[in-house]
Amino acid sequence: MSYVHGYERRESERLDDQAGTLVDLLHSGTAYPPGSSVLEAGCGVGSQTVTLAQRSPDALFTSIDVSADSIAEATRRVDAAGVTNVELRQGDIFDLPFPDESFDHVFVCFVLEHLSQPVEALTALCGLLERGGTVTVIEGDHGSAYFHPDRAAARAAIQCQVALQQAAGGDALVGRQVRPLMVAAGLEAVRVSPLMVYVDSSRPDLVDGFTRRTFTAMIEGVREAAIGAGLIEASTFDAGVEALHRTTEADGVFCYTFFKGVGTKQ
Amino acid sequence: MSYVHGYERRESERLDDQAGTLVDLLHSGTAYPPGSSVLEAGCGVGSQTVTLAQRSPDALFTSIDVSADSIAEATRRVDAAGVTNVELRQGDIFDLPFPDESFDHVFVCFVLEHLSQPVEALTALCGLLERGGTVTVIEGDHGSAYFHPDRAAARAAIQCQVALQQAAGGDALVGRQVRPLMVAAGLEAVRVSPLMVYVDSSRPDLVDGFTRRTFTAMIEGVREAAIGAGLIEASTFDAGVEALHRTTEADGVFCYTFFKGVGTKQ
Repeated sequence: MSYVHGYERRESERLDDQAGTLVDLLHSGTAYPPGSSVLEAGCGVGSQTVTLAQRSPDALFTSIDVSADSIAEATRRVDAAGVTNVELRQGDIFDLPFPDESFDHVFVCFVLEHLSQPVEALTALCGLLERGGTVTVIEGDHGSAYFHPDRAAARAAIQCQVALQQAAGGDALVGRQVRPLMVAAGLEAVRVSPLMVYVDSSRPDLVDGFTRRTFTAMIEGVREAAIGAGLIEASTFDAGVEALHRTTEADGVFCYTFFKGVGTKQ
Repeated sequence: MSYVHGYERRESERLDDQAGTLVDLLHSGTAYPPGSSVLEAGCGVGSQTVTLAQRSPDALFTSIDVSADSIAEATRRVDAAGVTNVELRQGDIFDLPFPDESFDHVFVCFVLEHLSQPVEALTALCGLLERGGTVTVIEGDHGSAYFHPDRAAARAAIQCQVALQQAAGGDALVGRQVRPLMVAAGLEAVRVSPLMVYVDSSRPDLVDGFTRRTFTAMIEGVREAAIGAGLIEASTFDAGVEALHRTTEADGVFCYTFFKGVGTKQ
């Protein structure tokens, strides 16, 4: 399965910008007790790992990712931040080398969107979790993006990303499905909170950090793939990206929603 | 200009259900000081009026609407609730019989969506406002509706409502435009908060009160108009409504966002 966002350096920086802007929104309410063991499944380049570990300094994190290159980059970041309560290792969510019920909690962020079998992934992770432990899932939803001025070309460019993610076996509309997926994996007392990012020119940090450098940069990143796959004309795609940049002007507005679910293994 | 939602009894009940479910979400943070005079412009059948007045019992409200029938119904409701700090009268936002700068605050809820000249309406209302007074605007945005399972027919049925509202001179996507509209009307320090309604089966009151009896009922209400205008086949529309009801099942999810803006007249 290919990773729709790619692995280039620029993409790594984009994920970093995203994580910086969204830290408080995504991590608020997530803290683990001293001594607890937490599995971060699909840590990627570690965009959430340092924040996660710093917010629960006396918990012990095991962060895994299927990509050895990503683990190398995540290790570099964790070391650079001086964080010592994280162990990083390469591994596949569907075949992890841990005994059953060996973690107190599981944290999964921006991972299910890339999986063709998200329920099975959550079920496998639940197997590694002690009874009474929690699973936290955070996902975006590209169908939650809308903006002013509204432009058909911008919607078409976003739809390319949705189609490419689907062709890669994922689902860019996964955010709204967090609760049904967690319930289907057998989790109990699942509670989902929408985390809406509302951006207008009175919030310049979000205009730059989210609309421009996170969302629009992500759409720009699929330009060649979208045109190559025959999903869109180059001129339409470029007009769509221009229309997304247009939403960063003084009278523009951009909206996007992440979804955070927490459930318990009984 | 025709009012897209119609004036029938069933519509009046729908607006009442909507107001009941959403009271805390919409009115949180809105309270006026004792002795202040507040103009509620476009009160309709008074769905917000009783709540508004009860939450600021020592403020004095003047609630106006262009429809004499709506004012009659609003008067009945205000009287039935025993609310005494509201004066109701028929009047047109663009031609109100009040002196300049005669109100301390203005409250406008679910009104701009119906107007072809929303900036001019806000500008006219600002003229009635004292310097230093606030304008509060609350609007929905039908482009903010998304759901699981996602179905093209449901999106098409919603799009009929958007098209009909546009044909009637309004804009069902107005929520995202609250800030630019208020800024264009000359208001200062405009701050917009998104008020997102997230509904899944763990929130049965919202499943019934919002997804079923507010949003889906509103879409069902435009069936004849949409089919009559040739916007959609009856079978597609009905499949769309069925798909909206499908989102109220155990694994369904429904999302919608209102936008609340507050600005000051300098």
